[in-house]
Amino acid sequence: MPHNTYLYQTRDIKFQMKEWLDLEKLLSLDAYKDYYGPDDLDAFMDVNFKICRDVICPANKEADDPGFQFVGGNEHAVKSPDVYKSVYATVMEAGLGPQFGDRESEGRIPLAWYAPILEMQVAASPAMVMLWCLTQGASTVIQYNADQKFKDLYLPKMYAGEWGGSMCLTEPGAGSEVGAVATKCFPTDTPGLYKIKGQKCFITTGDSDCVENIIHLVLAKTPDGKAGTAGINCLMVPKFWVDDDGNITKWNDVTTVGIEHKLGIHGSATCTLAFGENNDCYGWMIGDGPVDGRGKGMAQMFQMMNEERINTGIFSLGTFGAAYYAALEYAKVRVQSPHASNPKGPSVRIIEHEDVRRMLMLQKSMMEACRAMIYTSYYYIDMAKEAATEEEREEAEDFFMIQNPLCKAYTSDMSWQMCAEAIQVHGGYGFMEEYAPASLARDCKIYSLWEGTNFIQSQDFTGRKFTMKKGEPFAKWLGQIADYITNEKTADFAAEFDLMAEAFAAFREIVDMTNGWRGEQQRLVQLFATRTMHAGAMILGGKLILSQGVLAAKKLAELGEGHFDANFYKSKMATAKFFVMNVVPNIFGILKAMKLADTSSIDLAEECYM
Amino acid sequence: MPHNTYLYQTRDIKFQMKEWLDLEKLLSLDAYKDYYGPDDLDAFMDVNFKICRDVICPANKEADDPGFQFVGGNEHAVKSPDVYKSVYATVMEAGLGPQFGDRESEGRIPLAWYAPILEMQVAASPAMVMLWCLTQGASTVIQYNADQKFKDLYLPKMYAGEWGGSMCLTEPGAGSEVGAVATKCFPTDTPGLYKIKGQKCFITTGDSDCVENIIHLVLAKTPDGKAGTAGINCLMVPKFWVDDDGNITKWNDVTTVGIEHKLGIHGSATCTLAFGENNDCYGWMIGDGPVDGRGKGMAQMFQMMNEERINTGIFSLGTFGAAYYAALEYAKVRVQSPHASNPKGPSVRIIEHEDVRRMLMLQKSMMEACRAMIYTSYYYIDMAKEAATEEEREEAEDFFMIQNPLCKAYTSDMSWQMCAEAIQVHGGYGFMEEYAPASLARDCKIYSLWEGTNFIQSQDFTGRKFTMKKGEPFAKWLGQIADYITNEKTADFAAEFDLMAEAFAAFREIVDMTNGWRGEQQRLVQLFATRTMHAGAMILGGKLILSQGVLAAKKLAELGEGHFDANFYKSKMATAKFFVMNVVPNIFGILKAMKLADTSSIDLAEECYM
Repeated sequence: MPHNTYLYQTRDIKFQMKEWLDLEKLLSLDAYKDYYGPDDLDAFMDVNFKICRDVICPANKEADDPGFQFVGGNEHAVKSPDVYKSVYATVMEAGLGPQFGDRESEGRIPLAWYAPILEMQVAASPAMVMLWCLTQGASTVIQYNADQKFKDLYLPKMYAGEWGGSMCLTEPGAGSEVGAVATKCFPTDTPGLYKIKGQKCFITTGDSDCVENIIHLVLAKTPDGKAGTAGINCLMVPKFWVDDDGNITKWNDVTTVGIEHKLGIHGSATCTLAFGENNDCYGWMIGDGPVDGRGKGMAQMFQMMNEERINTGIFSLGTFGAAYYAALEYAKVRVQSPHASNPKGPSVRIIEHEDVRRMLMLQKSMMEACRAMIYTSYYYIDMAKEAATEEEREEAEDFFMIQNPLCKAYTSDMSWQMCAEAIQVHGGYGFMEEYAPASLARDCKIYSLWEGTNFIQSQDFTGRKFTMKKGEPFAKWLGQIADYITNEKTADFAAEFDLMAEAFAAFREIVDMTNGWRGEQQRLVQLFATRTMHAGAMILGGKLILSQGVLAAKKLAELGEGHFDANFYKSKMATAKFFVMNVVPNIFGILKAMKLADTSSIDLAEECYM
Repeated sequence: MPHNTYLYQTRDIKFQMKEWLDLEKLLSLDAYKDYYGPDDLDAFMDVNFKICRDVICPANKEADDPGFQFVGGNEHAVKSPDVYKSVYATVMEAGLGPQFGDRESEGRIPLAWYAPILEMQVAASPAMVMLWCLTQGASTVIQYNADQKFKDLYLPKMYAGEWGGSMCLTEPGAGSEVGAVATKCFPTDTPGLYKIKGQKCFITTGDSDCVENIIHLVLAKTPDGKAGTAGINCLMVPKFWVDDDGNITKWNDVTTVGIEHKLGIHGSATCTLAFGENNDCYGWMIGDGPVDGRGKGMAQMFQMMNEERINTGIFSLGTFGAAYYAALEYAKVRVQSPHASNPKGPSVRIIEHEDVRRMLMLQKSMMEACRAMIYTSYYYIDMAKEAATEEEREEAEDFFMIQNPLCKAYTSDMSWQMCAEAIQVHGGYGFMEEYAPASLARDCKIYSLWEGTNFIQSQDFTGRKFTMKKGEPFAKWLGQIADYITNEKTADFAAEFDLMAEAFAAFREIVDMTNGWRGEQQRLVQLFATRTMHAGAMILGGKLILSQGVLAAKKLAELGEGHFDANFYKSKMATAKFFVMNVVPNIFGILKAMKLADTSSIDLAEECYM
């Protein structure tokens, strides 16, 4: 039984969005300036908060048990928990779902605003969010790439949540190796129309009884398709065929073969889909068809993939954040053992024990540092599209690309560890499913796996992102961190700035080592990629949360100790200190190991693994 | 669905038991020398292996689903999965269960032999093992402390597995704070006989339909009992009353109120027990009754607790070890992606990818280092009881006491992380319950919580164990590690010895810092206790596994490359290098953080936690 009481807090979310991020700048861009001011975000967030608290989270119990059931048939082969349809309708009516996929219409909402919305929703139910958030990504791919006809036919329905969208990449033999897809698309006499045949697995919300139709984005190759990712096309394959007037005509031979029995997110249907079992499945090519067996599918799908990666960062964050708030609540009321300084004294609430404080602060600081990392990255996506100058757009795009693997991989790795901390705060009760962290821990494990495993993220970070465009963007990205650490030191955080300077130098060494490993030593890049990714996230997280601490100190000085919000700013200052002084030092252990450059694990012959 | 294919390997277990530990010395002691030689262990292990592979593990599916069901009633209020009774009978017939609780009979088996037996069993089914291993601990308490009459009445039945045993400490308001027990025992006219009233929760195998009767060891206070742990007594409370001839006469008013819905080990009944709901529950005091409200219960129960702590180390080890072997098997057959050094080449089995090697070796080296730590600790228990001289017995007892919190807490912390690595090796399939690691990850989470949370272990290590007997045992324990690192350096491991020397110096600093924090700074001891415990385990694990690597190198040189076992010794050498060069360096990050001595988490006012 997962949690069904919403304890999530929004004060820090509002601080990060409205006080710390330069929202004024974003909203002054042409795309937004006639429509929104910073305070409009509050309206979104407040409605969203109420829906999370009163509608989504109370339904989360059923999301886990019974969860989704497979019933078979072509209409709706999966049955959602009874409560789902009304929850779904509420979220759609409030405009808090796939509408964020719209990036081109007048009055579009900044994607940066989606970050807190989605985070709060995930914290209410990690499983249920999957009902609508894939639709957002699929709609963006269609909007950016498909012919106007399909935009007109599909997008209004998708934004309204009447139809869903899915992302059909994975096959049993093509997981991390996307280029190995075996699904085929065969040209027909109608331009752009292809016959589809193949099977996809692990398709999140690949079927749903909450929507009338689903527009599957399917990766497939033509018979003459090139090997690897070059030959990949991306097609729009509706579950039910849609005529030119937008009417549903007939089932499109997309069969839900089964759903997975998973460790977590039981309330999200993870489907195996068969396309064209009866030779009667058709799909529309997105954009122009392949030329000489080369398709554009991989680049198109990566628009969705990149957004799902940062979304996965948010999922990870919202999940362990929910566990943190459960632990905090519990720690404030659970009485157990006298304080260590007074062993004969009365038993105290466990929040008074130092180690419980350490666990809570570790979760809290991790939550806020990851939030900072992820929010800035969503912000970069908006800037990459909407900023006034080409230069600004390019820099934002580069910084998003550099940070995205950190958002996805570090936050999901931490999610598993932080959920364990939340369990630990609960003592033996933490192992019981009736307390929130148990199911959240189960749920969060998917995040390190999907949308590219965390090693793929680490490889992307240390390989492509270190060196893209001759390494200039990465040097610039590092430079802005270095500049901050060097130039913005304040008396309140003197020791923290010093530590960050030392840690930055260590990270610099890590980067140089990685870039310097050539030829045979390339193996070391792979071997240390995960740790390098972690080090990068700690540096970035450390810098961002320190800058929040500095801002909080300034605000506190302005408002004075007596101000009703003083506690919040004090909290931000302590959280920044904790993260810098307790999490960031792990970089030194990583640097040490990298200098040792041990290769025993790869030098050892495979047959010696036993 | 948990794993039901047994992939566990025993080569390293045999190496550690028979080649590395000084088993000859143990078996030459009076208690064992007439009964066992080192090769007799093989017979135990081989039978155990077959039972694990052919009987326990295949039944593990049912252990998770349906798991235990609560049916109510006084006879057997819980219903085990259908397969349990025959599995239980097989294990009992083979003498691989509670017999290891016998520490005084002629022909008794060394407890050190129990370590691999139990480890292999846990790897077959983390849940099912709980059917019999609490009986072992309870029987030891009875044997060491109870009157002969009860030993005669209870122990033969318990050793045979006809009756079970349980450990009833926890109450809703008395978890970590054992001294707060509210369960009462009231003297009767019969000496030693007490009336019992109270409720206990989280009682593992508190009820079972695999046994005729259960001897509950219950902590309770007399009406005049002292506050805290001083007032605690330990009583034997049979589920069904036993007359002086050993016959079961009637139900003893012990009611199973319910069982918990847990994150893992669904196949182990975690019971809430009500004693004396009908005012008709009786128990026998173990040993002499309380004097002036002071009982001996805490000390008695700690004999069991200490063994359950090290058993929890073994549970943690066997659980993540099983996950490792599943990952290894999977990595050898799963084909995905070309090798990084040949991006246009063919897809390879994932074990060829560097990062998969890193993950596998991390699990393997962690498994072997934890195994070394735990096996030596079981060995110390035997030596503490059976060694020839008082001096040897005392040293062994001290070393066991020092290492036990490391075995329990570090191994269980690592279990959660290593199961995640095993999941990660499986990619998306890792999240599916049909692959082994998912349920193992769920199962293992209990180990950081029960038998004293891991913070309690850390506090015990850094508090009591650093300073007991004026710190002499700890200094001696540190001294033997230092001696090894200083004096046993070999050419094969020169860099590893150097690193260990550096890491030892760092740990020494950590210890000195901890011991030096006085008064107000005591808060820092608490704040860094968990990290200090981790550092201690890494130093100990590093030393032990390095000594195994050195031994393996020697054996390899003797046997030659062409020997059939050469691969095993090569594996040991690489594993030692990996652990020392990749895990141990984390100590430097910990030391760094401790020097920074940040207190932000405890300086911050509670109301600022939000």
